[in-house]
Amino acid sequence: MKSVNQNGKTNNDIMDKIVTFIQQTTYDSLPTQLVTLAKQAIIDTLGVSIAGWQEEAVQKIIAVYGTQSGDASLWGEARTVPEEIAALINGTASHVLDYDDASAGVIIHPSAPILAAITPVAERLQSSGKDVITAYAIGTEVMIRIGEVMGVQHYRLGWHATDTLGTLGVAAACAYLEQLTDEQCAHAVAIAASMSGGLQKNFGSMTKPLHVGLAASNGIQAVKLAAANFTGNRYIFNDRGFFLAYGGMTEEDVAQKSSAFILGSPYDLLTSLAVKKFPCCFATHRFIHGMLTLKEAHHLTLDNVEDIVLHAQSRSLLPLVHSRPQSGLQGKFSAEYTVLAALEDGHVSLTSFTDEQVQRPHIQQAFHKVTVLPLEEPNEPVKGLLPVTLRITANGHVYEHAVPIAPGSVELPLSEAEHRDKWVSCLQFYTSDVHTDAYIQCYEDGMKLEQYTSFDDWLQTVYTTIQAPVLKN
Amino acid sequence: MKSVNQNGKTNNDIMDKIVTFIQQTTYDSLPTQLVTLAKQAIIDTLGVSIAGWQEEAVQKIIAVYGTQSGDASLWGEARTVPEEIAALINGTASHVLDYDDASAGVIIHPSAPILAAITPVAERLQSSGKDVITAYAIGTEVMIRIGEVMGVQHYRLGWHATDTLGTLGVAAACAYLEQLTDEQCAHAVAIAASMSGGLQKNFGSMTKPLHVGLAASNGIQAVKLAAANFTGNRYIFNDRGFFLAYGGMTEEDVAQKSSAFILGSPYDLLTSLAVKKFPCCFATHRFIHGMLTLKEAHHLTLDNVEDIVLHAQSRSLLPLVHSRPQSGLQGKFSAEYTVLAALEDGHVSLTSFTDEQVQRPHIQQAFHKVTVLPLEEPNEPVKGLLPVTLRITANGHVYEHAVPIAPGSVELPLSEAEHRDKWVSCLQFYTSDVHTDAYIQCYEDGMKLEQYTSFDDWLQTVYTTIQAPVLKN
Repeated sequence: MKSVNQNGKTNNDIMDKIVTFIQQTTYDSLPTQLVTLAKQAIIDTLGVSIAGWQEEAVQKIIAVYGTQSGDASLWGEARTVPEEIAALINGTASHVLDYDDASAGVIIHPSAPILAAITPVAERLQSSGKDVITAYAIGTEVMIRIGEVMGVQHYRLGWHATDTLGTLGVAAACAYLEQLTDEQCAHAVAIAASMSGGLQKNFGSMTKPLHVGLAASNGIQAVKLAAANFTGNRYIFNDRGFFLAYGGMTEEDVAQKSSAFILGSPYDLLTSLAVKKFPCCFATHRFIHGMLTLKEAHHLTLDNVEDIVLHAQSRSLLPLVHSRPQSGLQGKFSAEYTVLAALEDGHVSLTSFTDEQVQRPHIQQAFHKVTVLPLEEPNEPVKGLLPVTLRITANGHVYEHAVPIAPGSVELPLSEAEHRDKWVSCLQFYTSDVHTDAYIQCYEDGMKLEQYTSFDDWLQTVYTTIQAPVLKN
Repeated sequence: MKSVNQNGKTNNDIMDKIVTFIQQTTYDSLPTQLVTLAKQAIIDTLGVSIAGWQEEAVQKIIAVYGTQSGDASLWGEARTVPEEIAALINGTASHVLDYDDASAGVIIHPSAPILAAITPVAERLQSSGKDVITAYAIGTEVMIRIGEVMGVQHYRLGWHATDTLGTLGVAAACAYLEQLTDEQCAHAVAIAASMSGGLQKNFGSMTKPLHVGLAASNGIQAVKLAAANFTGNRYIFNDRGFFLAYGGMTEEDVAQKSSAFILGSPYDLLTSLAVKKFPCCFATHRFIHGMLTLKEAHHLTLDNVEDIVLHAQSRSLLPLVHSRPQSGLQGKFSAEYTVLAALEDGHVSLTSFTDEQVQRPHIQQAFHKVTVLPLEEPNEPVKGLLPVTLRITANGHVYEHAVPIAPGSVELPLSEAEHRDKWVSCLQFYTSDVHTDAYIQCYEDGMKLEQYTSFDDWLQTVYTTIQAPVLKN
């Protein structure tokens, strides 16, 4: 049934559905598989954030805002700040290494803004593990489904959806934790819509990870104001509202989409979430995976390999702009460096992307062995991505291997062991002063999050574990 | 001469011109007329903000954020908070009564976000009166000229330009006060571009005035981060950047506009700034002005007037949606109420817009006397607005009067006495416990702002004056 808005002209399905979803979703209603995915995503996002803590962008925000006094914990420092500042700093850390998860449908990083926002709020409210898992499910679902209404046009207009839509998802997630009324939920989302923003044009600068911090911080602000009965316009998704500004959509376009706007049946993340196995551009992941497979099968080394030819569709090669990288950051966007590092080291990890590692003469002198070529387009149009292929000449043999799917994709999810290994490597990257067993214990505890009466108890364990050596100094 | 950007494809005129403008503008370069206008605007904006202090939207933000500790003064409370919070609260107060100034060309309120941002920054830096006047001139000019690149399309897409463009103007103004380097100025504006936002769809809710607070707060944040060498992309105005997202403009559209992008020669405000004489929708101002003129000339009263016919172009009547208002807020958007109040009271002021005043039976019973009609469109297209006309029947006579221009418009600016009267009425609306002479003294001092070695000295005098009775309690 369609509702009539205050102007009597248009329906308000989308906001109504969001409010109902926030109010009616319970932990018990979540699919088991989603609960597991949520716990893995929360742990994964916290891990990559802590790994990113020493990055310049994070350290600079801490220098500017880290001294404000408040009660919300930072993830990688033994200090507390106001909630919005904690969300800003933690959120920036979560995206700074480009190692956080992604959802392909809307070109978005769902977990980072949601987790950065719900941790300080949950800390204040002493929310349970179940509540945090539920808030995560609500926030990610809302941000992605709103993005689906606009489709790729939102991205084409230059918006960074992780910020724009993240702000709305954060508002939904925190509205759930704060137990806002129906009316307050609608105001929270409407206020958040006026706080959205974030331009792709700032990619390549420190402002890209800042977008995640802004989404988290702004969404919290919207919810706090709504909780005090500050008002927005609940018809924000109707005529001349959010979808016109952010997607160029007319009211007719929106009306067409709104009956198909469904939340949580099923949850998008179950069919879309990709968790990064390697800390570099997703476009390199299939090449790395292929190289590691061939290396193991045929005992390849940087010395016995004579020639490497990488094929992929042109669009998959677009982000890989550095054929002769000199810095760690450039190496993340280099097909050449990542396959050579995989061949030389037998792994590609956070330690692969220091300037020193990229500048190793043994690697730099091998760049000429790698050729990257666009695939010939097939005569018939193809749905989705074609496999990338590697053709390696070594010891007089030619080895060919096709890789259709990147590890960590929903079709090839990381195993429990791979998740745990990533977590440990992230925390070791932050500090190697702690025994691996302590990190593994944090991981195992995190995977029992639904048993915690206070989510914060688990977080504090993690902080204590990683910060213990720092505090000893 | 056009510069070539990092992609070698497009020019970067607009950012280069903004940076140069921030760096090269000095107090001595400002036209004398602009200095006077700036001082009047600063005083006017502070006055309407203090008048709005008791409004619900302001009090709610104070309830949520007013307890954070910091060194920046609020305008209507004897307490200090972090700078960004002061900007958020003061900024919201400055727009909450819809009584702050406007610039017609870009449909924007220029002074409110700029003043809300520069006062806490100037307080910390102890900036001089001259520096604040210069920062005001820079900020307002940058926000308006960026808006001109997009033209009315920005507004058509549903953006509230006072927020979107205000954020950029604030960044420019505060970058000047903070004396950022060339590079830091560009980063500040680029970071601010990712913090812009604000939807017209939230008009009619508390989020509308919040937009001004957000612009002020976010612009300060961008400048603080840039001062710490946090980076954005200085090519934010180029291909697929700000102008695509906020104005649907292609790179070709932008290139066409960028050679005409000129800052400060002349300053837009000198030919566009409208200062509100009456605390209600601008569309009512010409009717009120006409009614006050006729009332005085012909001794009209609510009783001896039989009939009032108001004519205006349809577009001028669009915002006047309340023909039978019952609340103060509705009365602000009612042609009927505002002319009847002018007729009954001989003035339209802040006290005219309480619910009680609007509900006076003597007024309510006279609504039937007023007819509002759209003008017949002339055969020839007309540039700009046609005059509104009033036709009043009283005592057997018919009085006709045409009003081409609203008082406070650039063609009919408020006199010095009218400016001072508005200031006094605003402060009296905040508290009537203070003798008018003290308010007039604050005004006179403010008009000598260029003589202050610290702008904050003047502000503190105002705070002390208005808050003295509060503090006594």
